[in-house]
Amino acid sequence: MWGIIATWRMALEGVTESASALAAGRPASTAVVEAVVAVEDFPLYKSVGYGGLPTENGEVELDAAFMDGDTLAFGAVGNLIDIANPVRVAQALSRQRYNSLLVGQGAREWALEQGFAEKTMLTDRAMQHYRKRCRETLDKGLSPYDGHDTVGIIGLDQQGSMSVATSTSGLFMKKRGRIGDSPIMGSGFYCDSETGAATATGVGEDLMKGCTSYEIVRRMAGGMSPQDAADSVVFELEDKLMSRFGRAGDLSVVCMNRRGEFGAATNIKTFSFVVASENQPLTVYRAERRQEKTHYQPVDDEWMQAYATRIRAPIEE
Amino acid sequence: MWGIIATWRMALEGVTESASALAAGRPASTAVVEAVVAVEDFPLYKSVGYGGLPTENGEVELDAAFMDGDTLAFGAVGNLIDIANPVRVAQALSRQRYNSLLVGQGAREWALEQGFAEKTMLTDRAMQHYRKRCRETLDKGLSPYDGHDTVGIIGLDQQGSMSVATSTSGLFMKKRGRIGDSPIMGSGFYCDSETGAATATGVGEDLMKGCTSYEIVRRMAGGMSPQDAADSVVFELEDKLMSRFGRAGDLSVVCMNRRGEFGAATNIKTFSFVVASENQPLTVYRAERRQEKTHYQPVDDEWMQAYATRIRAPIEE
Repeated sequence: MWGIIATWRMALEGVTESASALAAGRPASTAVVEAVVAVEDFPLYKSVGYGGLPTENGEVELDAAFMDGDTLAFGAVGNLIDIANPVRVAQALSRQRYNSLLVGQGAREWALEQGFAEKTMLTDRAMQHYRKRCRETLDKGLSPYDGHDTVGIIGLDQQGSMSVATSTSGLFMKKRGRIGDSPIMGSGFYCDSETGAATATGVGEDLMKGCTSYEIVRRMAGGMSPQDAADSVVFELEDKLMSRFGRAGDLSVVCMNRRGEFGAATNIKTFSFVVASENQPLTVYRAERRQEKTHYQPVDDEWMQAYATRIRAPIEE
Repeated sequence: MWGIIATWRMALEGVTESASALAAGRPASTAVVEAVVAVEDFPLYKSVGYGGLPTENGEVELDAAFMDGDTLAFGAVGNLIDIANPVRVAQALSRQRYNSLLVGQGAREWALEQGFAEKTMLTDRAMQHYRKRCRETLDKGLSPYDGHDTVGIIGLDQQGSMSVATSTSGLFMKKRGRIGDSPIMGSGFYCDSETGAATATGVGEDLMKGCTSYEIVRRMAGGMSPQDAADSVVFELEDKLMSRFGRAGDLSVVCMNRRGEFGAATNIKTFSFVVASENQPLTVYRAERRQEKTHYQPVDDEWMQAYATRIRAPIEE
C-alpha cells in the first residue's frame, strides 16, 4: 500500500508527482519533501514559500517541518528568511541529534553553512497583497490575521514508512518572530509509522492548545478510523475553546493511517485537500462542516477553473 | 486545596514564597510566575535567566512559557536576548489573541515595546563555565550538550485554577536559534484546570517526540494517578525512543492534578523537585529511577549543604 494526503488545493501539482513516485516504490520521506518543495517554489501560492505573504514589517518569515515516522526524528525551522526551500532545511535538521528546531537568524546561519541557497522570497505580488491588506485593516477595520494556509503533506510508502512535512509563511500580517503550529511537533504535525500521521492548518495559536496532530494520531493508535479521529479532535477542540477561551479560530486537518485510509476535518466553510493512494485515484476534495461532522466531495471543473482564475487575478491596490 | 510543584532544587526559594501566597488565597498564575522570576533572577542558577549559560556563540538566549489552565491561553518566548524576566514576557503574551509564541529579535522587540526592562543576562561566572566547557569539549571529547535544567512550576490555587510556567537558557552550548521543549505547548508544559498540569526538563529534542506534558495531563484526565501518569509516560517514551530512534536523552517531569496530588518521574540518576500543598509540607525530594519506576525521598541537610557549596564553588578554568 502507498498513499499521500495534503492540505489545500495548492498541493495538487506536487502531490501528483509524488503519488507517481510512491506508486513506483520511492520513499515517503522524499515524496513529502518534494511535494512541499513544489508548493514552496510556486510563486502564486501566497501562504507558503516563494511568494508567501510578509509579516507586518514587510518581511517574509517562513516556517517548515519534517518528521520521519520510523524514528520519530524531526527537524523544523521558524522565521527563516530568504532561503529557497525551508522544508529542505527542516529535513536536514531532522538528521541532527540536537538543535533540530532552529529559528530566526540561527536557522538562517545554519542553512547557509550547510550550503542551502539564498533566495529573495518576497515577490512584487506578495507586496501588492501586503499593501492591500494594510489599507483594508486601516480603512475597513478588517482583521489583518485572515490568511494562514499551511501546506502539510503526509506520505506512506510501499515499505510501510510514513513521513510528514509542513511549510507556511504563517499568519498573514503576523508579528516579526511569531511562530504558529506548523513547525511545532504534535500541533502542526505528528507521524508514527506504526500508526499514521496528521497535519493541521488554521490558527496556530488555537491548534497548539489541543496538540491537535498528536491527539489525532493517538486516537488512530487506539483503533479509531482516521475520519472519526479527525472529526472528533477538531470539534472537541472547537467546543473546548468556545467554552473555556470564548472563541475558536479556523481548525482544519488531514490524516492517514498505515493502511492508507484517510480522514479530513474542518470547522470552516470550505477546506480543500488532495489525496491519492493505491486504492484511491488522485482527487481534490472540498470539505465543509455540517454541525459536528465534516463532509467532502470531489471538486468539479468549475471549481478548479475558479481557483486558477482567483490565484492569478490582478490585485486591486 | 492549594498546591505547587517545581522541577529542581533551584526552585526552592521561589516556591517557598509562592506556597505562602497560595496558602493565603492568591492566584496560581501569579504564584507560578513569581516563583519562576525568583529563579531567573538568582545569578548562581546557571541554566535559567540571569547567569544562564550561553549558546556556542557565547550569547545567552532564553526560552520561557506561561499557560493558564482555565482558558488554555498560553504565551511563550524563544531565544530572547537581554530582557530581565522572560517568564513575564511569556505571561504578557498569553493575553494576546494572536502572536502568542514569539522568538528571537521579534520577541525582543515586542518585549521592549511593552516596557520590559533590558538587562545584560550574561555573567562573568557563566562565561567561566562557557570557557571551561569549550576546553573540555575540545580536550576530552566530552559532549557539549550536558546541561539543560529547566525550571517548570505548576500551581493550584484555592479557587481551583491552575497555571504552569517554565524558564530556561536551554541546552548548554546549543546553536544560536535552537529551541527546546520549554516554550513548546504540550511538550515542555501543559495545564488544564479541569484535570491538572505537567512540566518537563531534559533533552528537549526527545521530550518533544512524545508531547510529554500533554500526554501526562491526558492520562490524568483518564483517571490515572499523577505518579502513574508521570512514570508511564517517561518510561514508555524512553522505551519507544530506544527501539525506534536508538537512543534516549534525559527525561524528567513533575505533575499535579486538580486535587493537589502530585507525581514525578525521571530516567536519570538524580532529579530533584520541590513540592508543597495544603496536605504536604514544603519538601525538596531527590528522585531516582529504579527500573521503570521512579522512587523519591526527602533530601537531607548534607545534600542541601553539598548543593549550596557546589553552586558557589570556584570554576577551575
